[in-house]
Amino acid sequence: METKDKNQVIVLAERPTGIPSKSTFQLKDTDMPEIKEGEVLLKSIYVSVDPGMRGFMDKGMSDNTGLKFEIGKPITSRSVAQVIESKSKEFVKGDIVHGRLAWAKYQAMDAKKLEKIDPGLAPISTAVGILGVPGLAAYFGLEKIGKIQKGETVVVSGAAGGVGSAAAQIAKIKGCKVVGIAGSDKKIDYLEKELGIDKGINYKKSDDLVKALTLACPNGVDVFFDNVGGKIFDAVFDLINKKARIVICGQITEYNEAAPPQGPRPQHTLIKKSARMEGFVVFDFKDEFEEAKKKLAEWYQEGKLKYKENLVEGFENLPSAFIGLFTGENIGKQMVKV
Amino acid sequence: METKDKNQVIVLAERPTGIPSKSTFQLKDTDMPEIKEGEVLLKSIYVSVDPGMRGFMDKGMSDNTGLKFEIGKPITSRSVAQVIESKSKEFVKGDIVHGRLAWAKYQAMDAKKLEKIDPGLAPISTAVGILGVPGLAAYFGLEKIGKIQKGETVVVSGAAGGVGSAAAQIAKIKGCKVVGIAGSDKKIDYLEKELGIDKGINYKKSDDLVKALTLACPNGVDVFFDNVGGKIFDAVFDLINKKARIVICGQITEYNEAAPPQGPRPQHTLIKKSARMEGFVVFDFKDEFEEAKKKLAEWYQEGKLKYKENLVEGFENLPSAFIGLFTGENIGKQMVKV
Repeated sequence: METKDKNQVIVLAERPTGIPSKSTFQLKDTDMPEIKEGEVLLKSIYVSVDPGMRGFMDKGMSDNTGLKFEIGKPITSRSVAQVIESKSKEFVKGDIVHGRLAWAKYQAMDAKKLEKIDPGLAPISTAVGILGVPGLAAYFGLEKIGKIQKGETVVVSGAAGGVGSAAAQIAKIKGCKVVGIAGSDKKIDYLEKELGIDKGINYKKSDDLVKALTLACPNGVDVFFDNVGGKIFDAVFDLINKKARIVICGQITEYNEAAPPQGPRPQHTLIKKSARMEGFVVFDFKDEFEEAKKKLAEWYQEGKLKYKENLVEGFENLPSAFIGLFTGENIGKQMVKV
Repeated sequence: METKDKNQVIVLAERPTGIPSKSTFQLKDTDMPEIKEGEVLLKSIYVSVDPGMRGFMDKGMSDNTGLKFEIGKPITSRSVAQVIESKSKEFVKGDIVHGRLAWAKYQAMDAKKLEKIDPGLAPISTAVGILGVPGLAAYFGLEKIGKIQKGETVVVSGAAGGVGSAAAQIAKIKGCKVVGIAGSDKKIDYLEKELGIDKGINYKKSDDLVKALTLACPNGVDVFFDNVGGKIFDAVFDLINKKARIVICGQITEYNEAAPPQGPRPQHTLIKKSARMEGFVVFDFKDEFEEAKKKLAEWYQEGKLKYKENLVEGFENLPSAFIGLFTGENIGKQMVKV
C-alpha cells in the first residue's frame, strides 16, 4: 500500500452565489481510509469537472440519482482511479476503474459502484471524456433527442467543449452539415482545422450573430445542440426550420443564476415552425450506455472522433479548474490529474 | 339562384397593432360572383373565427399552406356553406360543404378545395368546430405531441374554448386526470358540471395560481396542453414532472404582440425534468385527418364529447366576433351565423 502520501479531500465549504469562488471549497487533510468487505481502496488519477455540477451546489438540488452536495462533505464527480487494495472479488490491485468519486486522493469505495476500464481500448482518461458522460451526452442528444438525419444542418454551441466537440464530430460522421459556435479564434481553428467541421463562428467577434449564422446556414437550422443558452440560443432559434429539434443539453449561461433569466418566450415560434425543444440528462438512456460506448470507441479507433483534454495538474487545483469552466478559454474536456 | 341578397365581403382594411379593432376591417358591397367550369357558387352559413388568424394579419406572415392576408383582400377562415349553383361534377345544388372560405356572403370556389359535409353525422356547424380544426387540434395535440397515457395528470389552459374544451374531454376519455384553467366562474362551472373534468381553476380569482395548481395536481403535471402562454404557462411549468410533455397549441396572450414577450427562460427546467415543449399546427397531420374525424364523430355520437358554440348572428358582426376572442367571456367555439 502506498501510504507515503497523506490523504486529502476537498469539501463544499459554503454554497456559492453566482460563479463559485475559492471560498466555495475547502482542502482538508484526512486519514487514509480503511476498507470493508466488498470495498476497494482507490487512488484518484483523473478527476473530471463539469459545468452541470454547479446546479448541485445550490440548496435542495440533486441530480437524477439523488446525489446532493452537502456543506462539509466532499464534492464528487466522474473520476478515473486505480485500485490499490481490494476486498472485493470483482477487482484486483492495479485495476483501473471509473465512477462517481469523491474529490479525495484516496477513498474506500463499494466495488458495485465502479466500472472497470480496459486500458487497451483508449487512454484511460477517455472514460470520463469522449467515452464517458460527455461523449454519451453528445451521442444520445443527437440520436435520441435531435434525431439527426443525413444532409441536415446542425448547429452546436459551446462547440469546442467536451460535449460540444463530440457532438460536432458525431453530426459530421452522420453526414450532416455542422456549424459550431465558440468564443475564441483558437477554438474556431481547432473546430475547422483539427475536427473538420464545416464552419466555426466566434460569437465574441460577431457583431451580428444572426447574420453570421444566416451566412453559415443558408438552408436554415434543422437541429440545434445547445450547451450554452442565453443570447446564443436566441440567435440560433431565429433561424430554425420547420420541424426543427432543439436539444437542450447544457445551459452554461444559466448555471450560476439564482432564478431563470428572462428571455424572449419561444412558444410562438415553436408553433409557427412545428418545432420541438427538449431537455435530457444522459442517465435517461442508461440502458443503452454499453451499445453507445462501443460505437464511440469504434469511431475513436477509426480516427473519426478526436478529442482534446485540458489537463490541470495537482489535486489542490480542482477548485480553480472547476471555476475556470465558467471563465476560461480552455479547449476540450476539462479535467484534473491528481 | 338566390339573388335577392346583395353580395358583401369583409376585407382587411389595415394591419392591426395589438388587438384588432373595427378599423382593421372593412365591409364592402360587391357583385354576385359568376362561376367557371369546375367551380361552385357558395352561400356562407357558418364562419369560424379563431385566435390563430391574428398572426396572418401581420405583414409577411402566412400559414402552413402559404395563405396570407392582404390589405384590401377578403379575410378567410374555415366556414360552412351551401352550394347554390354548381359547374362541378363533385357537388350538386343543396350540398353542404366546408373549407377555407372568404368572408363573403356569396363566393365562387374551386370545387377541389371543398369537402362535403354529411348532415346526418352531426350538426353541420361541427365541421368547423368539434369535428373540424379545433377538434383535430385537440386530438393530435394530445395523441401525437402530448402522447397522453391513462392515469397521467393533464392540465389544459383556455379550457373552456373551442380547442381547450375538446382537449379536456379527450384527455378524460383517455383515462387521464384533467385540470382546466379558464377565466370566469361560469366557465369553471361548465368545465366541472357539464364536461365533467376533475377540477377547474379560475385564474382570475387565484391570487396564487401555482398554489391552486399544486392542490389540484398533487402528483404534478405530466402533460400541459397550452392554448394561452404567458404567466399561466409559467405557473403550470413550475409543476411539471420528469419527462413531461408541453403541447404548445395556441398562445392567445402572444398573438397581438409585435415581438415575443419576455419570460423566464425554460431551458434549465427542461434539462432538470428531461421535459419537452413542442409546437404544432393541425395540418402537420393532414394525412390522418379522416381517421381522427371518425374517432371524434364516434365520441360525439356516444355523448362523450360535448361542445358549445358561441354563435353571433349576422355577417356584419364578423369583425366584432373576432375581436371578442381576445376580450370576451365566451364559452365554446366562437362562430358567426351569416
